[in-house]
Amino acid sequence: MIITEKDSWIRMIFSIHGTTMDRTWPRLAVVVGFSIFITIIAMVFPTHAYTLTMAPFTVVGLALAIFLGFRNNAAYDRYWEGRKLWGRMVNVCRTFTMQINTLIGAETGPVDPDAPLQPQADQQRMVHLIIVYINALRHRLRDTDASAELRGRLQNDAEADCYLAQDNVPAAVADRISRCINQVWRDGRLNVYHVPLLHQNLTEMLAIQGGCERIKSTPIPFTYSVLTHRTVLLYCLALPCGLHDTVGWLTPVVVALVAYAFLGLDAVGDEIEQPFSTDDNDLPLLQLTTMIEINVRQLSEQSPEQLPPPVQPVDHLLI
Amino acid sequence: MIITEKDSWIRMIFSIHGTTMDRTWPRLAVVVGFSIFITIIAMVFPTHAYTLTMAPFTVVGLALAIFLGFRNNAAYDRYWEGRKLWGRMVNVCRTFTMQINTLIGAETGPVDPDAPLQPQADQQRMVHLIIVYINALRHRLRDTDASAELRGRLQNDAEADCYLAQDNVPAAVADRISRCINQVWRDGRLNVYHVPLLHQNLTEMLAIQGGCERIKSTPIPFTYSVLTHRTVLLYCLALPCGLHDTVGWLTPVVVALVAYAFLGLDAVGDEIEQPFSTDDNDLPLLQLTTMIEINVRQLSEQSPEQLPPPVQPVDHLLI
Amino acid sequence: MIITEKDSWIRMIFSIHGTTMDRTWPRLAVVVGFSIFITIIAMVFPTHAYTLTMAPFTVVGLALAIFLGFRNNAAYDRYWEGRKLWGRMVNVCRTFTMQINTLIGAETGPVDPDAPLQPQADQQRMVHLIIVYINALRHRLRDTDASAELRGRLQNDAEADCYLAQDNVPAAVADRISRCINQVWRDGRLNVYHVPLLHQNLTEMLAIQGGCERIKSTPIPFTYSVLTHRTVLLYCLALPCGLHDTVGWLTPVVVALVAYAFLGLDAVGDEIEQPFSTDDNDLPLLQLTTMIEINVRQLSEQSPEQLPPPVQPVDHLLI
Amino acid sequence: MIITEKDSWIRMIFSIHGTTMDRTWPRLAVVVGFSIFITIIAMVFPTHAYTLTMAPFTVVGLALAIFLGFRNNAAYDRYWEGRKLWGRMVNVCRTFTMQINTLIGAETGPVDPDAPLQPQADQQRMVHLIIVYINALRHRLRDTDASAELRGRLQNDAEADCYLAQDNVPAAVADRISRCINQVWRDGRLNVYHVPLLHQNLTEMLAIQGGCERIKSTPIPFTYSVLTHRTVLLYCLALPCGLHDTVGWLTPVVVALVAYAFLGLDAVGDEIEQPFSTDDNDLPLLQLTTMIEINVRQLSEQSPEQLPPPVQPVDHLLI
Amino acid sequence: MIITEKDSWIRMIFSIHGTTMDRTWPRLAVVVGFSIFITIIAMVFPTHAYTLTMAPFTVVGLALAIFLGFRNNAAYDRYWEGRKLWGRMVNVCRTFTMQINTLIGAETGPVDPDAPLQPQADQQRMVHLIIVYINALRHRLRDTDASAELRGRLQNDAEADCYLAQDNVPAAVADRISRCINQVWRDGRLNVYHVPLLHQNLTEMLAIQGGCERIKSTPIPFTYSVLTHRTVLLYCLALPCGLHDTVGWLTPVVVALVAYAFLGLDAVGDEIEQPFSTDDNDLPLLQLTTMIEINVRQLSEQSPEQLPPPVQPVDHLLI
Repeated sequence: MIITEKDSWIRMIFSIHGTTMDRTWPRLAVVVGFSIFITIIAMVFPTHAYTLTMAPFTVVGLALAIFLGFRNNAAYDRYWEGRKLWGRMVNVCRTFTMQINTLIGAETGPVDPDAPLQPQADQQRMVHLIIVYINALRHRLRDTDASAELRGRLQNDAEADCYLAQDNVPAAVADRISRCINQVWRDGRLNVYHVPLLHQNLTEMLAIQGGCERIKSTPIPFTYSVLTHRTVLLYCLALPCGLHDTVGWLTPVVVALVAYAFLGLDAVGDEIEQPFSTDDNDLPLLQLTTMIEINVRQLSEQSPEQLPPPVQPVDHLLI
Repeated sequence: MIITEKDSWIRMIFSIHGTTMDRTWPRLAVVVGFSIFITIIAMVFPTHAYTLTMAPFTVVGLALAIFLGFRNNAAYDRYWEGRKLWGRMVNVCRTFTMQINTLIGAETGPVDPDAPLQPQADQQRMVHLIIVYINALRHRLRDTDASAELRGRLQNDAEADCYLAQDNVPAAVADRISRCINQVWRDGRLNVYHVPLLHQNLTEMLAIQGGCERIKSTPIPFTYSVLTHRTVLLYCLALPCGLHDTVGWLTPVVVALVAYAFLGLDAVGDEIEQPFSTDDNDLPLLQLTTMIEINVRQLSEQSPEQLPPPVQPVDHLLI
Repeated sequence: MIITEKDSWIRMIFSIHGTTMDRTWPRLAVVVGFSIFITIIAMVFPTHAYTLTMAPFTVVGLALAIFLGFRNNAAYDRYWEGRKLWGRMVNVCRTFTMQINTLIGAETGPVDPDAPLQPQADQQRMVHLIIVYINALRHRLRDTDASAELRGRLQNDAEADCYLAQDNVPAAVADRISRCINQVWRDGRLNVYHVPLLHQNLTEMLAIQGGCERIKSTPIPFTYSVLTHRTVLLYCLALPCGLHDTVGWLTPVVVALVAYAFLGLDAVGDEIEQPFSTDDNDLPLLQLTTMIEINVRQLSEQSPEQLPPPVQPVDHLLI
Repeated sequence: MIITEKDSWIRMIFSIHGTTMDRTWPRLAVVVGFSIFITIIAMVFPTHAYTLTMAPFTVVGLALAIFLGFRNNAAYDRYWEGRKLWGRMVNVCRTFTMQINTLIGAETGPVDPDAPLQPQADQQRMVHLIIVYINALRHRLRDTDASAELRGRLQNDAEADCYLAQDNVPAAVADRISRCINQVWRDGRLNVYHVPLLHQNLTEMLAIQGGCERIKSTPIPFTYSVLTHRTVLLYCLALPCGLHDTVGWLTPVVVALVAYAFLGLDAVGDEIEQPFSTDDNDLPLLQLTTMIEINVRQLSEQSPEQLPPPVQPVDHLLI
Repeated sequence: MIITEKDSWIRMIFSIHGTTMDRTWPRLAVVVGFSIFITIIAMVFPTHAYTLTMAPFTVVGLALAIFLGFRNNAAYDRYWEGRKLWGRMVNVCRTFTMQINTLIGAETGPVDPDAPLQPQADQQRMVHLIIVYINALRHRLRDTDASAELRGRLQNDAEADCYLAQDNVPAAVADRISRCINQVWRDGRLNVYHVPLLHQNLTEMLAIQGGCERIKSTPIPFTYSVLTHRTVLLYCLALPCGLHDTVGWLTPVVVALVAYAFLGLDAVGDEIEQPFSTDDNDLPLLQLTTMIEINVRQLSEQSPEQLPPPVQPVDHLLI
């Protein structure tokens, strides 16, 4: 995700980074080159045989507007839903940690809400498994290898291998949390009435994971993408044929501007359609998981030295 | 569902498969043929009697934009809602399995969350019924015969026939799961406070099923489809009459491109309006149910040999 | 609701039934008649006094697009929300039946989930009241008289009259179900912890009913409908004045096609705005209530003879 | 809210009432007067100095379409959300009443669900407070004085003054209901497990109230309204300058029609943006609260004489 | 947020305040200055070399409509979601306060719902922490320093420093509330069955906080903003080249009006995209937190002198 200052209207106008240029310039070059060719032909050998006039463009423009408007909205919805899901993940991790820290425990009688928490080993383990879970999910969504991170975090290769052996690593971790809940309940350290409350958090975590996997595994139907790409390309290629007899030598300039806008719109759609990759405009999963980890550990009263540093944007880019 | 690599912009431009061509080519041929006929007539016998000019097309284009934009959004919403419902099904099956494996059981006292699960017969049965349920639902949504699969999976023809005798086979299976919950509760192996928690999963499964049946049984109102089809066809047929006096011999080319975009948009709407069929752009229910089965069985610690292989795309197509 | 086969693209193009023609033909006749009149005047006495050119139509077309697009979406949203509500009703009736059949009952100790259910009188009564409820709701939404059906179904005129005496008959039936829950709980046949679970179903049923009543009692604000109707009519009437000088004798044909699309779009909006009536494109409430009844009775193990036959489409129409 | 018969397409076309005419006619008069002035100038002293041609209008029309389309949707969403909130209020009042009538009470042992309810004083009081609550909320949303109604309904001036002393009168009433729940629970007349169930209704009522207050207190951002009003006005005023050279003496007629549509659309947006006022197209809160009162009292088996008469539309207007 | 009277249509037309003019006037000046320059050149040295005609503008207008329409909707959705989240915060604070005041307490036996509340120290503390929480959240969302306010409100610097030491101050406060719930439960002053009910409020508060943080930390993807800004600017700069040959000396006037609308639309999008700042059209968080504080304190029966005064708009502006 690209992070900029708020009031940089002028700087945005002249920005290069993060405007899909690195992806669209070959297409743009082809389109502009073709338009220069057409313009030269048309201006040097003036003839009306290859003049389209603007009439067809109003018609095709209609189709283009429907395609681009639709794909744009669909892609942004996916992006924003992905962000919402991770926002819910932030919430559920905080809530879950608070509940683990206060609801589990055998003592009755007066307790002091201002005294420092002294979480037991099983509580600490459950909170740690939450952190393992979100990192495993990040690796899964980004198709990266989770084994090194899991082994490092768990410091128990047998347990890590047990999770890694399953197809769905985060689900395996969540399953272990579910067994920990079982353990504290059956040991008498969790009230039977509070088991459903803790389970709700697990249900929510799996619902979020399912939502992310859905976005990842189901792209916008292929036909829409193909039709959009084709209509945009043909429109841009045909544009000089329609423009040259009114605009003349300015044709390539106009075509360049129009093609830049349409190809850019098309490309940004491709980018945010899969919001969990590491493209410029994608979601900063590493920053989010690190933030959750810091939050969760602070709520468990770990000392500041134990916390990882927050992820900072590198060259305005947050990953 | 069509699966392609992410960066294949160029390949998409030249793709043939999955672009509704197999469905729209007869309509496209009729439209282009007619436009060639009109163009020849108009160019050979130039007369202004059959010239429409572009004026009517701006007007009809308005209606067309409303129709196509609306139908497109409505169809995609149905497609995406269908996918969301199956995403929730993935979630609920995982959650349900975890809860069955941990909440059911009579033991109290220390349990080890890292020890292998040893699910009892009734727990195994409930998890197995979940798998039967999703497969029965898949057959129901695709209008295929579930009897062979049910008999194979249950290995108990009496039980299978009992389900198959009902109008709604998946609901009959869900009802049996509900009775199993009843059984373990009344036997004292499930805490009375946890009965609602397990029932919530069942409620969610039936809600998902109801959502899928709703999408399947209630198409977009007939009148919209008819009006869209007609407006698209008439627009494409009339287009050469409006274009030939400005575009001349290029008329059929322009008509072909425009008609390809509009007929394609119309056809892809037809396809994803019913997302549970087996068209190119429809949802891969078989892949989803197999994935759920693998997940659920792994969470129940079945050995890898017992798992079915995941469904792979055949010729970029996932069913 | 109109039911057709899926692949009938060609048949749809030539379909007459269900295309709002029965409703729009007088308006269409007026518009086309007027356009013929204007065309004759304009072609026989050529003068530029009554020529509008297409300029005003781009302007009014803008307003028209906003009006029609808006009303179309609003009407379809109401239709689809109505369908969703009845989909939820299907779900809640199934879930409620399962819970009534398994949660109510005094026995403890081993029960066999595969043994036939033997619902007691109060369980049977509650399931029967669910069926009475949905039928009472159907009558309420369609403004038909529920008294005959209620008396027939309850076979107890005193009870039926008691419900019919209230303003809101379905709410009265739901209230009785609530008292039945009270009865089984206070009799010791329903666990006190499971009372909220059963009540949730009742809450959901009343939420669905409230949603349906909301759609029924609150149309799209009057001003929108009036402005849409007027803009459409004036646009269609003025169209020949703008077209005749470019299109000539073809004016009535073009006007007929345009007016058909716009008047049809306007009329289908009127139809599905109130999705609970019995217009061609409205929801098949009778089919839905019958399906729920069959489902609910099968889940209660009633024998096939006792079930009503499912509602079949008559002449492609399902009511 | 304006109530009309369904099939009055023709009557709608000629309707005057409820079409924002009472609000827009001065603006319309200014615009039409100006267009007559411009047309006379342009026709009597023909010159091209003040001819705009239609070119700028396609450009401004774009901005206009975005503004009007956006504001229209935003205003209607607010209206429909307001209606949904009151629909949920209907539901929660019915549900709450049923639960108060059945869950509260000390008796165990057989009860007859068909016997008339005999609510105790505290149950009657809670149901009565629900009715007080919705009426207090109606006064709050309409900025009318609730004191007379509250004193009349409560017949206990001390209690009424206690509520009226708070900033938020309905919240004060809801708080009293919460204390009544506390009372019946601590008196042993409500099971401790059912307290959360009753509280859920209260939570829902406060959520609805908060939603209504949000709509009331937060208009569409001021800038949108200003920009929309200005663009509409300037567009209508400039229109004759662009039309007169093609349309001639018909200019004022065209301008009148266009301005009627745009000013009407702008005005209806203003009206339904605040759906709780008493404009023609606003929500009939008085009818809704009276309906809830009748429902709730009938469910508590009050005799018909005690019920208020339902609110009827006066001159097609429901308030 | 700008607060005006409802019927000020005329005053809105001539309003200056709150119309983004303070932000857009430099851009507007550049655009208009450039258009004057172009017009003078074109009128004094008439040549067709730099005439664009309107043809390219229909094409670019298409892209502009998609960009502006999309960004507008996305920005408003963020604004309205932010407002909804704070509306839910109002609700949850009211509900939480009522539940704290009635559910906590050891007494059984008759209680009088009309007697004044006498909250104990721990109840008072929890309600006070709710007020601290919302103010800490306001500071966090507005990037202002919370330390002074927290120290003043808590009157306990050790406790305040404890919260301020964490990265996420509001989460730390919420965690303390969670420990207070723990305390009253383990002390026997809160029924074990009601712990989940109180925790739900906490879960909701953290969900709201997470939603606000999501809106704040994730802007609309950078590429959309850049493409929108650029297309708007280039469109406005190129407009005189297309208009001057039809509109002549009126070109700068038309350009000024068009540019005002487009630049204004672009700027208001920037403003409400981040609804928690203190721009003219942003949400009045200070007014909302003060209102919640008044509500919550009144529900706890604090005397009027203890309440803070409500926040009033200053020069029509509410912050």
